[in-house]
Amino acid sequence: MSLCLLSVGDSVVSVNEKAAHIARRMVLEKDEFKIDVKSLDNGALIVDCGVNREGGIMAGKLFSEACMGGLAQVEFSYTRFGMNVNVSTDYPKEACMGSQFAGWKIKVGDFFALGSGPARSLARDEKLFKTLGYQDNCPEAVIALETRTMPSSEVASYIAEKAGVAPEKLYILVAPTASLVGSVQISARIVETGLHKLHELGFPLDAVLSGYGTCPVAPIAKSDLKAMGITNDCILYGGQTRYFVSTEDQQVEKIIDKVPSSASRDYGQPFYDIFKKYDKDFYKIDPHLFSPAEIFVNNVTTGSCYHAGGVNEDVLKKSLGVE
Amino acid sequence: MSLCLLSVGDSVVSVNEKAAHIARRMVLEKDEFKIDVKSLDNGALIVDCGVNREGGIMAGKLFSEACMGGLAQVEFSYTRFGMNVNVSTDYPKEACMGSQFAGWKIKVGDFFALGSGPARSLARDEKLFKTLGYQDNCPEAVIALETRTMPSSEVASYIAEKAGVAPEKLYILVAPTASLVGSVQISARIVETGLHKLHELGFPLDAVLSGYGTCPVAPIAKSDLKAMGITNDCILYGGQTRYFVSTEDQQVEKIIDKVPSSASRDYGQPFYDIFKKYDKDFYKIDPHLFSPAEIFVNNVTTGSCYHAGGVNEDVLKKSLGVE
Amino acid sequence: MSLCLLSVGDSVVSVNEKAAHIARRMVLEKDEFKIDVKSLDNGALIVDCGVNREGGIMAGKLFSEACMGGLAQVEFSYTRFGMNVNVSTDYPKEACMGSQFAGWKIKVGDFFALGSGPARSLARDEKLFKTLGYQDNCPEAVIALETRTMPSSEVASYIAEKAGVAPEKLYILVAPTASLVGSVQISARIVETGLHKLHELGFPLDAVLSGYGTCPVAPIAKSDLKAMGITNDCILYGGQTRYFVSTEDQQVEKIIDKVPSSASRDYGQPFYDIFKKYDKDFYKIDPHLFSPAEIFVNNVTTGSCYHAGGVNEDVLKKSLGVE
Repeated sequence: MSLCLLSVGDSVVSVNEKAAHIARRMVLEKDEFKIDVKSLDNGALIVDCGVNREGGIMAGKLFSEACMGGLAQVEFSYTRFGMNVNVSTDYPKEACMGSQFAGWKIKVGDFFALGSGPARSLARDEKLFKTLGYQDNCPEAVIALETRTMPSSEVASYIAEKAGVAPEKLYILVAPTASLVGSVQISARIVETGLHKLHELGFPLDAVLSGYGTCPVAPIAKSDLKAMGITNDCILYGGQTRYFVSTEDQQVEKIIDKVPSSASRDYGQPFYDIFKKYDKDFYKIDPHLFSPAEIFVNNVTTGSCYHAGGVNEDVLKKSLGVE
Repeated sequence: MSLCLLSVGDSVVSVNEKAAHIARRMVLEKDEFKIDVKSLDNGALIVDCGVNREGGIMAGKLFSEACMGGLAQVEFSYTRFGMNVNVSTDYPKEACMGSQFAGWKIKVGDFFALGSGPARSLARDEKLFKTLGYQDNCPEAVIALETRTMPSSEVASYIAEKAGVAPEKLYILVAPTASLVGSVQISARIVETGLHKLHELGFPLDAVLSGYGTCPVAPIAKSDLKAMGITNDCILYGGQTRYFVSTEDQQVEKIIDKVPSSASRDYGQPFYDIFKKYDKDFYKIDPHLFSPAEIFVNNVTTGSCYHAGGVNEDVLKKSLGVE
Repeated sequence: MSLCLLSVGDSVVSVNEKAAHIARRMVLEKDEFKIDVKSLDNGALIVDCGVNREGGIMAGKLFSEACMGGLAQVEFSYTRFGMNVNVSTDYPKEACMGSQFAGWKIKVGDFFALGSGPARSLARDEKLFKTLGYQDNCPEAVIALETRTMPSSEVASYIAEKAGVAPEKLYILVAPTASLVGSVQISARIVETGLHKLHELGFPLDAVLSGYGTCPVAPIAKSDLKAMGITNDCILYGGQTRYFVSTEDQQVEKIIDKVPSSASRDYGQPFYDIFKKYDKDFYKIDPHLFSPAEIFVNNVTTGSCYHAGGVNEDVLKKSLGVE
């Protein structure tokens, strides 16, 4: 029945088809979600979740779910630090690495943004996809951009072409870092952040069956730069993840202690302070810092359970401005 | 496509249209929700959520969401005090003040009740609406009444006429204070209670972008009077709220400490004891008491965060009968 | 409009009709839920949630909701012990005792399994149903089996015949104990486990209006036998329940202290150790052990609140392998 068939193991699920379904709901109920929709000359639709309209909590949920190719549940809970976003997925590789990871460098003229969302698994414009062995096949595409600059027709055409879809079949979700949707969708990357770190450490992504996590949602900061700091702190010092894996115990044992952010030499200070220490040069920061505060792994093949890291309340309180 | 258009800033959302949608679901699935539906002579429908049938947890959720004009999410979580109700809205002014606030004094013959729900924003029979600058426009209306007395045709006709709808287009949701739905829907007023207090303190409602909160659901008491006491305690001593606002910091700073219930001279005892102390005369109680236990405010314009109050476990345990 | 009418007090709700609706969704979106569907010779459908495919978190939610006849909400939350499953129902008797309780001994040739799910209330092949005074009437049936052995056509025909439905109208949900769906659906029995204990203690089931509970989801163990141990520990040492009842206080007072697992002589050790102590003979274990760790009861007739038991973190940590 579906035109969008993607072979995922035995599975036939299209991350772009599912994300487009969510994006259409956002467009149709844009007023309820306090978002704006702008049609570009080439027919691509910008779903503006925080530039010209405020967006809201529900828009944040839908943005995040679309960004994960519709293969994750995003819910909220209430904690001492405010709101937490809870994410679970039974397709961690496809939803997190194939869709949500902000790995596509989109540069068109003066415009630059890191693209995330399922359109990446159509364009496959990153080295990562060679390892993933994964691609979507769908006439519609959904890309998510963390930016305050509205993309032009040229940007949209570039993305559409790379993704192999007609521009009028492209949804571009946009939210600045310092916005309500920004805060939600960044913290909703908690399962992806852990998975990415696992991947960096050489753990096989295909061994990860399901994952879930919880992460504080950052208060909205004055500027996108400050917001970058606080949202990162939510993940690095407050994010907790759990993965069900199927592999040999040894595979888990040799990496588990290196997974949490605390394994990084740069761990321990609010992210913005670290960023300043390195003269605001992202690439000087230890890449191993980018990881959840805590990880649990349950190997379903052996029944073994592993745990590393933990929430750092001191840094979190300092960063979030909680007494 | 919709006949119910309401201009809310740039928005076109009708609180009555959305609430009527929820009410219809309650009517159609009344057995599943353990509620009763009674058609009055003039065609108005009473959705009885606790008088002649018991109601339940799900009926409490739907009652609360309808009462907020369909512009809020109502979920449950489990805590040491039992069940908490979690409420979030991206339309705090419309959902809370325009709909949920129990501000409409409905007096027809011997019948008296405080009306809440979106029909208020059609009738606009309260001074409050002059400040709100807000009105709905919809051929259907939904009113919610906290009462054990079933409203008559005359009461329904009065409400319908004031709301400008035909009586057969009116849904009247009814639940007594001492009922499961009563307990849920009162605690679901947590975001509204804080917003009302902010409004009383002169804080501009239009500056409040989104809000969420959590509040214990009171155990069901023997009588409506006792239930009034315990349900109030849940809000006053256990309710926690968060608001995203856009304004000058000074606006927040000058009122934040006055928001929580602890800022009232009557704070510190179970509500029923305070009520008795004042000879059961509601109007002798300090109106500033009616507020959540705790408030957090994040000013998205400046990135500033504010906090006042806190949960009072001692009074809460005493009131809820928890050891 | 519905062909499936079941008289539940004043109510007309069919647990099998509602469960079949959920089962159909599982079949249609089997790839999204990582489950397998197998059609038997006689047309019965096996919905395989953990034998030949892995299943996942969402499959666990749907399996549990179907198992409760669609009359319960199953959600997840994040805790120190990982994921908790939260269950609430406004039809405790029908959803828990009439559907979810694993009370139907299905023995066909070499095949043996304890059947749970709403098909039980069609077959009524248990003494329990004499007390329940309850039966469904529906042309479709849903049965749930905790097993690693795929049922044959003969097994399906036996179940269908007992349930009075055509084999092609039967859905058989299957999940092994040591699987993700197994872990979820067993912990989702938390409200049922407490209700069953109340029933065993002579408390009238019709007095229980609504119930909810929360229970840790066990990590997946190496074998089904080990999984039986850990999943039981989640309920016995980590499960918390709340019931709204309508009766005389005396009825609650005389049983409340006997409800929690801690009232059993066998309480205090991981279940697997108890099992071994009794030479792996289930029937030597004190049947009173099978109960939630904690129970709260709110008598809505009198407003009284009762509480017994509590979470046993020591045993739980030991069993779940949490530091």
